Amino acid sequence: MAVKKISIAGAGLVGSLLGVYLSRRGYEVNIFERRPDFRKNGAYGGRSINLALSNRGLRALREVGLEEAMRSKAIPMHGRQVHPLKGSGGFFPYGKEGEYINSISRSGLNEVLMDAAEQHGVKIHFEARMNHVSISQTEFSWTDRNGKTATEQTDILIGADGAFSAVRQAMQASDRFDFSQSYIEHGYKELTIPPAEDGSFRLDKNALHIWPRESYMLIALPNPDGSFTCTLFFPFEGPVSFEKLKSDEAITDFFKNVFPDVFEIMPDLLKDFRENPASSLVTMRCYPWVKNKTMLIGDAAHAIVPFYGQGMNAGFEDCRVLNELLDTFKDDWNLMLPEYQRLRKPAGDSIAQLALNNFIEMRDLVADPDFILQKKIEGKIHSLFPDKWIPLYSMVTFRDDIPYATALETGRRQQQIMHEVLKKPGIQSDWEQLDFASIVSKLN
Amino acid sequence: MAVKKISIAGAGLVGSLLGVYLSRRGYEVNIFERRPDFRKNGAYGGRSINLALSNRGLRALREVGLEEAMRSKAIPMHGRQVHPLKGSGGFFPYGKEGEYINSISRSGLNEVLMDAAEQHGVKIHFEARMNHVSISQTEFSWTDRNGKTATEQTDILIGADGAFSAVRQAMQASDRFDFSQSYIEHGYKELTIPPAEDGSFRLDKNALHIWPRESYMLIALPNPDGSFTCTLFFPFEGPVSFEKLKSDEAITDFFKNVFPDVFEIMPDLLKDFRENPASSLVTMRCYPWVKNKTMLIGDAAHAIVPFYGQGMNAGFEDCRVLNELLDTFKDDWNLMLPEYQRLRKPAGDSIAQLALNNFIEMRDLVADPDFILQKKIEGKIHSLFPDKWIPLYSMVTFRDDIPYATALETGRRQQQIMHEVLKKPGIQSDWEQLDFASIVSKLN
Repeated sequence: MAVKKISIAGAGLVGSLLGVYLSRRGYEVNIFERRPDFRKNGAYGGRSINLALSNRGLRALREVGLEEAMRSKAIPMHGRQVHPLKGSGGFFPYGKEGEYINSISRSGLNEVLMDAAEQHGVKIHFEARMNHVSISQTEFSWTDRNGKTATEQTDILIGADGAFSAVRQAMQASDRFDFSQSYIEHGYKELTIPPAEDGSFRLDKNALHIWPRESYMLIALPNPDGSFTCTLFFPFEGPVSFEKLKSDEAITDFFKNVFPDVFEIMPDLLKDFRENPASSLVTMRCYPWVKNKTMLIGDAAHAIVPFYGQGMNAGFEDCRVLNELLDTFKDDWNLMLPEYQRLRKPAGDSIAQLALNNFIEMRDLVADPDFILQKKIEGKIHSLFPDKWIPLYSMVTFRDDIPYATALETGRRQQQIMHEVLKKPGIQSDWEQLDFASIVSKLN
Repeated sequence: MAVKKISIAGAGLVGSLLGVYLSRRGYEVNIFERRPDFRKNGAYGGRSINLALSNRGLRALREVGLEEAMRSKAIPMHGRQVHPLKGSGGFFPYGKEGEYINSISRSGLNEVLMDAAEQHGVKIHFEARMNHVSISQTEFSWTDRNGKTATEQTDILIGADGAFSAVRQAMQASDRFDFSQSYIEHGYKELTIPPAEDGSFRLDKNALHIWPRESYMLIALPNPDGSFTCTLFFPFEGPVSFEKLKSDEAITDFFKNVFPDVFEIMPDLLKDFRENPASSLVTMRCYPWVKNKTMLIGDAAHAIVPFYGQGMNAGFEDCRVLNELLDTFKDDWNLMLPEYQRLRKPAGDSIAQLALNNFIEMRDLVADPDFILQKKIEGKIHSLFPDKWIPLYSMVTFRDDIPYATALETGRRQQQIMHEVLKKPGIQSDWEQLDFASIVSKLN
């Protein structure tokens, strides 16, 4: 099959980047986007306001020449600034000197990617609603902004249309398609810490701030205008939950008691709390990702919870790997497609699991002395044996060459080893006397 | 909320039985069934031809006075008749003397249940297609056989509309609804062993016949007319699979080689094989089962694979438990509904797992000497300590008072204990010398 014409559902981050990749290879690419062009009307429909761009995402951008454009719009975050309710907290670097993640505006990133796609000749159809999708015919009908419906025949159809993908829904209606959607008990609500009166940041600009409260947490990421976007991850129901915070008084009391330092610098708390929705958090898994000439990518194939900051990075890595496989198979999609899902399905499953696990780390463990000590010990081991022991966070975030599945599995074994190490009496005071070489040898 | 009017989607086995239960309690019950009334046109749309009715299902029928009517239509199966490719096979009783499961026609059962529902005043609307379902309004629109659409307001809406439930789909579209559908690699195809020329059964009538072939199997259940309905459970793809059996020659060769005894008594093999579809096998899990005043029951809540013969029995148990909860809560649905899902969700999950596990037992283990010995030892222990050690199969099939979740968990512990027992050197010959009391004490 000679593939010429490719149709992508969704002009979000992944759909737009994929458009760039495929257009550069010489394909005729059309993207069908449900929403209007936010570059014209200014109203971005995407949900979370900023994202953490890290090495896997940067690598995918670099290969199409977009890395520097993104870095210039991003704010480096070198570590976590932990704000406990009691005690001193502190700053915990994410990795080695010079390793950091990047706080970046979702809409800004999307704008650059859409512009790049169009510059490469991709045609983006906005306000285009996909109706019927036929997997067997690789064909779909869509309605444009004027209500006109057309049928589109395409060589390849790619669903990059997010967690609630219409393309996946068409695949799901066919026989023998595995699918799961699983919600966690927590939702999230976005709040804001505005800049100080002089325009400066009210908290350290180069950190991801966490207020861990065991069963829930607040986080804050910096924006270029001096503000922070905060996200409260909080149970929907139960004794301490969104359903209990209904009155202004309840909201105010809660923040005064539980986040007293934030309360002081969040003047619009009540307005934000009332106006911004409490949104749900879901993990979606499915298989196959390929049926006939239709395939899924990004959140459409593997929607994950946001706690590892890897949703976008994993989607960008999908694009980069797909492009490499097209090189390998000389653009033979019949050979490439099975290999794409064989490689990427375990990646999607693994980062989904890592993201679920990291919620517990962020909301609870970061304030735990044993956990902090473990991070310190692992940092030391990594500095002594940089290739033999790479902390899990670094494998996921600062490497772009270790598969997520390998990171998950290696991380599990590291955890077992460290669990034993931390049992040693007196470890808090004499950890520097540990036989680090022997610890490393247990892993390798 | 005073509940008067209840609407049920689906007049299958569970929907019809539930109609009987609820109508007896004085509710005004309407059932909306997509298919025509098969009692009039003779064409039953349900899939598998016969089912195994066992104690949980019988108890649910007994409580509305339908047990005897069903028993009179059923053929008792006292055990498994195993037909290995090599070696002697044999007959293995399911339980103690007098314990058996019942081969019964799905359509015959459904007919009795529909008749009973109507006799109790239930109105069944056939060829009724549910369109839009509103969970928040407990309201739906439906189209009748003449194409007329009406909107129905109801106090309670119950989805008893099977694995591909429209009611569940409406719940799934709402926020925070967990759902999974998971297919196994095998499909099934129904085949027939007709009666002998004199009208008699060609195999032992009072057994469930199994031809275990490790990675796949054929089974046969008796019908009152002297025939057996056979089901081939077989991989869709791979070296030995449906996709490889395309020509008449391939089918014939395969049966001659792998099921030579069946081949001799299956004159319509080629016709059946070509005309009957290879259908897929799915496990569906979801949660919650209750949203506002809408609830799910039977396959709509927990579709399972057929290998424990418990799909219908579990659905009937749902009805019986729901009825008991209505007694307990004096028909207060606000109190009853949360308790219904709290009790039945673990039951659904457990029987789903048991059914998946049992496929391996049926297709492979029944021909394994260790497995046969284990069954023998467990039978002996059960006869010595009838209340303290009940074999897993008996807990699931012959008890109607042990929750599926308890059976699954107890079965796991029994399996661990028996795994150790079977390691004993010489066990095959001197198992009768085992200290049975000490084995039992490990479980309790």
